[in-house]
Amino acid sequence: MGLILADDLLGRGLAQIQREVDSAFDAILPVPEDSRARLVEAMRYAVIGGGKRVRPLLVVTVAEMYGASRSAAIRAACALEAIHVYSLIHDDLPCMDDDDLRHGKPTVHKAFDEATAVLAGDSLHALAFELLADERVSCDPFIRAELVRALATASGHKGMAGGQMMDLAAESEDFDLHTVTRLQQLKTGALLMAAVEMGAILGKLPDEGRGHLRNYARDIGLAFQIADDLLDHEGDEELAGKALRKDEGQGKATFVSLMGAKAARAQAHALSEQAIGHLAQHGKEADLLRALARFVVERDR
Amino acid sequence: MGLILADDLLGRGLAQIQREVDSAFDAILPVPEDSRARLVEAMRYAVIGGGKRVRPLLVVTVAEMYGASRSAAIRAACALEAIHVYSLIHDDLPCMDDDDLRHGKPTVHKAFDEATAVLAGDSLHALAFELLADERVSCDPFIRAELVRALATASGHKGMAGGQMMDLAAESEDFDLHTVTRLQQLKTGALLMAAVEMGAILGKLPDEGRGHLRNYARDIGLAFQIADDLLDHEGDEELAGKALRKDEGQGKATFVSLMGAKAARAQAHALSEQAIGHLAQHGKEADLLRALARFVVERDR
Repeated sequence: MGLILADDLLGRGLAQIQREVDSAFDAILPVPEDSRARLVEAMRYAVIGGGKRVRPLLVVTVAEMYGASRSAAIRAACALEAIHVYSLIHDDLPCMDDDDLRHGKPTVHKAFDEATAVLAGDSLHALAFELLADERVSCDPFIRAELVRALATASGHKGMAGGQMMDLAAESEDFDLHTVTRLQQLKTGALLMAAVEMGAILGKLPDEGRGHLRNYARDIGLAFQIADDLLDHEGDEELAGKALRKDEGQGKATFVSLMGAKAARAQAHALSEQAIGHLAQHGKEADLLRALARFVVERDR
Repeated sequence: MGLILADDLLGRGLAQIQREVDSAFDAILPVPEDSRARLVEAMRYAVIGGGKRVRPLLVVTVAEMYGASRSAAIRAACALEAIHVYSLIHDDLPCMDDDDLRHGKPTVHKAFDEATAVLAGDSLHALAFELLADERVSCDPFIRAELVRALATASGHKGMAGGQMMDLAAESEDFDLHTVTRLQQLKTGALLMAAVEMGAILGKLPDEGRGHLRNYARDIGLAFQIADDLLDHEGDEELAGKALRKDEGQGKATFVSLMGAKAARAQAHALSEQAIGHLAQHGKEADLLRALARFVVERDR
């Protein structure tokens, strides 16, 4: 697997998180014996086994850096991943990006149907907040409420969903670099920021101590997105497990179309280095975060 | 207006709640000056001005019965209404119930477009939990977390979304009365139950004291749905502000098709009386709830 070759520490970290997240979702989502079975099967199809689990890794690593329990952090990480996955299901719908493949398998509306895909997304959305309100995430209700606040704000119209709306507008409007950056900070950046924020909340790190983590998340978020545009421009569809070069076909502004591939690559690497710089106050316990910052610009999918 | 003629107390109560909910949403949802404007306009279109506000009335009335502040209850009621409205937007989509009219005006995907409708629903969904995690709902984080738990559980695959999935299955499966009852308890009952539950949480009523409110909500929920089936069978499309007799056309089992109109009407009235009976321990402060129980079976839309 490309991930393990790229960085052994990170590959093992992601594989471990993947197992724990999958096993948590398996327990959280038993299939009922009535006609809701199809709904829960669609939720399981989308949420178990796929994805790199970058966001869960961020939640858990930051939470453990500040002494929170891993089992609690995994549940919070599942909540965040449920939001990420619901957004992928809805973004893939025919009326949105109209994609047939995701992580190398048919998208939910292809494997099931559109109505089930809408409802599976909605149900994962609700599940995220059900998980965060549960005492198994924290016996401290302030922490539970803060996790909800962080995730809800990051995923709604002020965050991820707002970014997706801008992305749809990008098909017909000419966006400059400033606007594309803002779009990506909302569409993908907001949830990455929420990931470190949630880890910090679980670890009871006061708000004023979180600046360096937010800066780290902002920088890897942009680096990730620039790398994504580069992959979209130059990548291998089979490795990526999804259709590529759609943005170019639609004449949509991307970091690559606005900066050129060479400058975009240099910018991604600079952001990755800058992200690692924000972790200077931490020792070995932040090594996974450093590896992740390198990985986001070096990955092949 | 039919509502006011039916019951003056209830008509005034609903009109007052409508004003307060509209004004709260107006303040909560300022239109941004970038390409997210269209998204927020779609959210405002769906959430301001439409609907009877039955669920907000339940939250606020129960909360005030137990001494909670009205302004806090209005914010919690807005969260519940945001969930209700997002579910209507998604249910109206072409891939779901494919409806063009809602509350007498074009549905969101007709007035805007499908992608905007999906995102406006998703954004209202997230907004609901953002509102509940906010200190303006309660300075007690336990109350905030409990409100999130109640609403998330009621709206996901174990509640409303699960009921909608069963409703889609009803188009191809033969449902008996037991299954139709279960379907409706999830699809519409779960949110009505959450409404009284949220009022009780705001009023710090212990869990063991909430049984009569849950029974009340369960009974008006079923009565409401039976009345809805009767309206669908016999009602006036112009008054209803939406297309009627779709279930019959699809051969879908309803309370009316399974029991006959006469028995269904008798059952709805019996449930309404039973609901009022559950309020025996309360005095005048529960009069709005009693009026609502009568209204749900006597309404003409």
